[in-house]
Amino acid sequence: MDHKIRIVLSVRLFTDEKCFGPGVATLLRKVQELHSLRAAAMDMNMAYSKAWTIMKKAEQELGFRLLNSTTGGRHGGGATLTEEGAKLIEAYDGFCRELQGTADRLYDTYFADF
Amino acid sequence: MDHKIRIVLSVRLFTDEKCFGPGVATLLRKVQELHSLRAAAMDMNMAYSKAWTIMKKAEQELGFRLLNSTTGGRHGGGATLTEEGAKLIEAYDGFCRELQGTADRLYDTYFADF
Repeated sequence: MDHKIRIVLSVRLFTDEKCFGPGVATLLRKVQELHSLRAAAMDMNMAYSKAWTIMKKAEQELGFRLLNSTTGGRHGGGATLTEEGAKLIEAYDGFCRELQGTADRLYDTYFADF
Repeated sequence: MDHKIRIVLSVRLFTDEKCFGPGVATLLRKVQELHSLRAAAMDMNMAYSKAWTIMKKAEQELGFRLLNSTTGGRHGGGATLTEEGAKLIEAYDGFCRELQGTADRLYDTYFADF
């Protein structure tokens, strides 16, 4: 067969409803880097209103805040991750990394013939 | 925190483009069971035309056939899995099962605090 198959994992967290996945995770990492949800959204070519809605929905489902809004100060309004937000993105990224390692190892067992 | 987090994995196969995921996998399992793509689609509340398009696109991307169409005979027209189709769904299901096992084990390491 001509095509080499590549595997893409997607990890989503649910409480009652979907509450956390690749989109929110990327937003949180960008906020860590850019200290602003607006800048994070812009960097992802996402409307700020959409980023804000995604974040609020995730916080509501999870039952805790992910972002602290900071207003004023030397850099104007911005956002930082709450302690729980930082712990969650760290857990999510660590989990995904280990799982991807397992997927890479399992690949040969299951998909070597394709 | 009030909510118990549950993890949902999604495994997608790509060649150049996405070619195989939970939707095609479910269709194939239903065809195995019901010996007909039309019956499989109906069972999933999916339009037959949509099921047919999904299947054709997957076959095109993978570079091999997933279904044999059978016409006439005692049960009228129907479909069975090709040998490669049967091997692929078996590989996909085995891979997902093992990966889910790893995810369950990793859960406590990463998400016990949430």
